[in-house]
Amino acid sequence: MFVIKKNGEIEPLQEEKIKTVVARIGGSLELANKIVEKVKTSLPDRVPVELIYKTLFDEVHRENPVLGCKLNLKKAISELGPTGFPFEQYFAKVLEHSGYSAVLPMLFEGKCVQHEMDVYATKGGDEYLVECKFHQYWQKKSDIKTALYVYAKVLDINEKNKKQFKPWIATNTKFSMDAVDYSHCQGIKITAWKHPLGESLENLIEKSNCYPITILPSGTREIFQRLIAEHVVLVEDFLKLSKEEIQKISGVSAEKCEYLLQEANLLRPTR
Amino acid sequence: MFVIKKNGEIEPLQEEKIKTVVARIGGSLELANKIVEKVKTSLPDRVPVELIYKTLFDEVHRENPVLGCKLNLKKAISELGPTGFPFEQYFAKVLEHSGYSAVLPMLFEGKCVQHEMDVYATKGGDEYLVECKFHQYWQKKSDIKTALYVYAKVLDINEKNKKQFKPWIATNTKFSMDAVDYSHCQGIKITAWKHPLGESLENLIEKSNCYPITILPSGTREIFQRLIAEHVVLVEDFLKLSKEEIQKISGVSAEKCEYLLQEANLLRPTR
Repeated sequence: MFVIKKNGEIEPLQEEKIKTVVARIGGSLELANKIVEKVKTSLPDRVPVELIYKTLFDEVHRENPVLGCKLNLKKAISELGPTGFPFEQYFAKVLEHSGYSAVLPMLFEGKCVQHEMDVYATKGGDEYLVECKFHQYWQKKSDIKTALYVYAKVLDINEKNKKQFKPWIATNTKFSMDAVDYSHCQGIKITAWKHPLGESLENLIEKSNCYPITILPSGTREIFQRLIAEHVVLVEDFLKLSKEEIQKISGVSAEKCEYLLQEANLLRPTR
Repeated sequence: MFVIKKNGEIEPLQEEKIKTVVARIGGSLELANKIVEKVKTSLPDRVPVELIYKTLFDEVHRENPVLGCKLNLKKAISELGPTGFPFEQYFAKVLEHSGYSAVLPMLFEGKCVQHEMDVYATKGGDEYLVECKFHQYWQKKSDIKTALYVYAKVLDINEKNKKQFKPWIATNTKFSMDAVDYSHCQGIKITAWKHPLGESLENLIEKSNCYPITILPSGTREIFQRLIAEHVVLVEDFLKLSKEEIQKISGVSAEKCEYLLQEANLLRPTR
């Protein structure tokens, strides 16, 4: 069985790739094997990669709606856009549910000029100045320029305030290799997609159970934008609203509201 | 007489604006007055700003073709794009004709990672690392992030090499106010459009008589791209070519070639 990639290249089906995705969202090996079997028996011998994704999504959703939502996490975060502010709000909430105290956005005097930092976070005596880099397009990596300017920014603030604020960059995409090297060398904390191992963006989200509102399968762009405009960025915040409030903010019917609440309840934090 | 601005606003004609432009390119007060008179007598009472520009260009060109070319400098530099490399080449030549020695682009080991600098320039014992920021759109200002990342870059290089390289940012557009403040405070040299007074990009160009090839009125985008691909970025370099070379590189007719050479000769450096 051969897979036709988006760039037109053809390669043999790699079952391991499917199993890795299922494992990442916490699915069982049994589920993974079931999906591989389904792909191999129900799809043509030369199959576009999109069709494999579709089968994967459909099967995971049918088996376990919660895992299905989690499969969409990457896309859900990108739907917090187009501006970067909802991601800043969202990341601050993830930090708060991970034991930090977090304040959104703050001005700091530097030796040379005044700077705005997206989030000021503290935990156990350490103080962090967080720069959030939101990219709506997943292909866009944060590059070394980001790491360099954030370092210079925090340096300028520290010089003025005689402080040891630690720089922290949070992004919903990946970091280029040299940006990772530079950040590691200069002591800049990075939170990115799949990086660093065990403390990546998706790790923090799953550990804190802080899912973005945009993960609800029944939601639309318009519904999300309306909720975000009212600072409802977490599924948890959504669940705190009454049905009347949801309908008023998002303009949905009573029936649609029920669907959304059912989906949100599946992801209700167990805290 | 009223001027209709691009954004639709209407304001009274400010004669001083026309006189300032003429003075900047080295035109006489007599020429400036003549143009103001022409604008006031030949244009309608409510006139789009573009029509005033056109009259200004036409009159300057008719009076003095060299000044006419200089009027186009801003646009000519933006035509060095779409990529940033021709501007780097061009700026290095401007530096060379301003008494610096300049080398294009170089890799430097930093404390943390390796960095590429667009130009390495020296003069009288001082060593500069230049970052060129080319913007094809004039509205786009270089912002403080640029100043911050260039500072961090040179800092990393200096720490590794125990050197005192001076950071230098050259751009064809303007700098935001806080970028200027930060650069001044951190000792970053800036060369931008109209900044700093007396040593701005257009000042350096006029003093060194280093006009970009894209300033020739008879040139087209295709001709310029072909010449630039062969590293002919200065009018001066163009004048070193034979007619046969010009025709071969740019693919123009003998007649067109004559026009271009005539225009280039008007701008021939007097060195």
